[in-house]
Amino acid sequence: MYFVILAGGVGTRLWPRSRRQMPKQFLNITSPERTMLQETYARVEDMAPEDHFIVVTSRAYAPTVRAQLPRIPAENILSEPAGRGSAPAVGVSALFVHRKDPSAVMACLSADHFITHTEEFHRVLRVAEAAAKEGYLVTLGIQPSYAEIGYGYIQGGERLMEIDGVEVRRAVRFTEKPSLEDAQRFVAAGNFYWNAGMFIWQASTILDAFARYMPDLYERLMQIEAFWDETGKVGVIPEDIWLSIRSETIDYGIMEKADNVAVVPADLGWSDVGSWATLLDLLPASDDGENVVIGRHVGVDTRNSLIYSPDRLIATVGLENIVIVDTGDAILVCPKDRAQDVKRVVKYLEEQGLYDVL
Amino acid sequence: MYFVILAGGVGTRLWPRSRRQMPKQFLNITSPERTMLQETYARVEDMAPEDHFIVVTSRAYAPTVRAQLPRIPAENILSEPAGRGSAPAVGVSALFVHRKDPSAVMACLSADHFITHTEEFHRVLRVAEAAAKEGYLVTLGIQPSYAEIGYGYIQGGERLMEIDGVEVRRAVRFTEKPSLEDAQRFVAAGNFYWNAGMFIWQASTILDAFARYMPDLYERLMQIEAFWDETGKVGVIPEDIWLSIRSETIDYGIMEKADNVAVVPADLGWSDVGSWATLLDLLPASDDGENVVIGRHVGVDTRNSLIYSPDRLIATVGLENIVIVDTGDAILVCPKDRAQDVKRVVKYLEEQGLYDVL
Repeated sequence: MYFVILAGGVGTRLWPRSRRQMPKQFLNITSPERTMLQETYARVEDMAPEDHFIVVTSRAYAPTVRAQLPRIPAENILSEPAGRGSAPAVGVSALFVHRKDPSAVMACLSADHFITHTEEFHRVLRVAEAAAKEGYLVTLGIQPSYAEIGYGYIQGGERLMEIDGVEVRRAVRFTEKPSLEDAQRFVAAGNFYWNAGMFIWQASTILDAFARYMPDLYERLMQIEAFWDETGKVGVIPEDIWLSIRSETIDYGIMEKADNVAVVPADLGWSDVGSWATLLDLLPASDDGENVVIGRHVGVDTRNSLIYSPDRLIATVGLENIVIVDTGDAILVCPKDRAQDVKRVVKYLEEQGLYDVL
Repeated sequence: MYFVILAGGVGTRLWPRSRRQMPKQFLNITSPERTMLQETYARVEDMAPEDHFIVVTSRAYAPTVRAQLPRIPAENILSEPAGRGSAPAVGVSALFVHRKDPSAVMACLSADHFITHTEEFHRVLRVAEAAAKEGYLVTLGIQPSYAEIGYGYIQGGERLMEIDGVEVRRAVRFTEKPSLEDAQRFVAAGNFYWNAGMFIWQASTILDAFARYMPDLYERLMQIEAFWDETGKVGVIPEDIWLSIRSETIDYGIMEKADNVAVVPADLGWSDVGSWATLLDLLPASDDGENVVIGRHVGVDTRNSLIYSPDRLIATVGLENIVIVDTGDAILVCPKDRAQDVKRVVKYLEEQGLYDVL
């Protein structure tokens, strides 16, 4: 199996830690020692040799990826001249894997997600690999634990096979960010899963799908392959071709349209680490006030709050469900239930051109 | 008239701005350009020549006082070897004034209070001076605007005189920090005033009061005077004598006992700046969210909050009635209605010996 780590994201909701130059996948957000990218790699590094790992990222982040994952061959780090969404990123990595082994199965993983149950993750990846070898476009479906409206949902249909005690079902329908009512209905129904954006397929299967459902993108991919053939610069993405590609997600471009999509239900303790609120739920409490503290904190009557301040003392009195993040040049203070709106701060900073804190 | 500024306070409730080495009277808390001590001096400097100003402070703060008030003669800065409360501080300054002019009237002012109406302040000081010349121990009484339980109250009695349209009443009773019920009764009654800790009297009158009500302290004052006579070091407080003095407030030691106390009702826009909450009420709003902002702030849905951060950007989302103070080495986050409990943070820091942020 090959592993493709998509590491081109530019998040805003973990500001002020995540920055334009250093988004969350390159930060030690979920672990004190390792960045999220390093955790993503470490989680699966035993499953394949080093040259089976590919990272797709933007040009600006390629040096960071090389520094953080020195074991991955430099030529396996594919640098996008500009972000074009997940479909082109998956496309160019499929092309790259296909050249090495047309029948290879590749697993596409996000560089900035959190997974608690690593062994279970390995097990479902092996199950997904087996299903992928049958020609399916396989996605991992997370059993929803509550009616989250920020995630996409996958409806599971007929049972396609059972491997190692794990059922593989046909994916009937993809629903992007549903209404609360729909989300509640999905959770109650039992056969709906969160779309965690992790896909497993043969390189040849996904390239066939591009040819059928995204012919424009497929044509550009063929031009890139021709460039690789002509120049020998395999893995280098020519700017002129890339910039002519339309942005699209793999979900919208392929998964919602293809008829050979399978879902493997997975209980991974998964989180997309989409906001400071998620992180407060995710990280272990540091004190008997159920606070998550990284740094130096003196709390009087302070509960269930996230305090990040590696360099300065933060003192709090009478706070509950508050996020405080001090990065040395900027400080965020925000109630947990408003954590989604941190993106509005970033938007404002962008509008005002305050690049020193972006 | 002589002016005695009491500047020995060691506050804790404006932490992290006020520190052991630099309490609030030495900080530009209420004005961008001037410290509270400088404001206290500036408020009355036109009322007397420079050598009529005396500052009583602790030894550690004397250099700061000299630096902040360079016009006051250095010998007029009386340095206490240790804090002993307001009664000894007033006593030694009365001794000092009395040597210069036994019949002089002296006004005792706190270095860390805020007064909005300077002209009215001048007017009531002149009225109080006239009453002091009649032999009264005069105190200014602030008409209470609400039932504050953190202040002392003075009950006004019979009318003693009227000067310049201002009534001077006998002070019948002093009540330290009353219950809420009592405070509400006081405010409703109309003849109770906040004790602002501003006193006006002849040096001879207060020394007589010390002789009568605090004979131990008076004896020590006489020893200090003898030391001044013998050595010529007028204004120097000998450590051995001073350390043998018992701590006491002027309110408890004299004002609550003496029978010649008068109160001059005064509408000064006064505040003791006793907490961050007071300051939030006091300072003008900086934006249309009614926030008081000193520094760089980006607020999304943020209202009626105090943001102090001269060096770093503070971003807030969805906050109301919150105090955030960043001093570079420490940050406080606290709801306005818990501002009194900042002293609990300081107490904890003291217990833990965290002197770097005290």
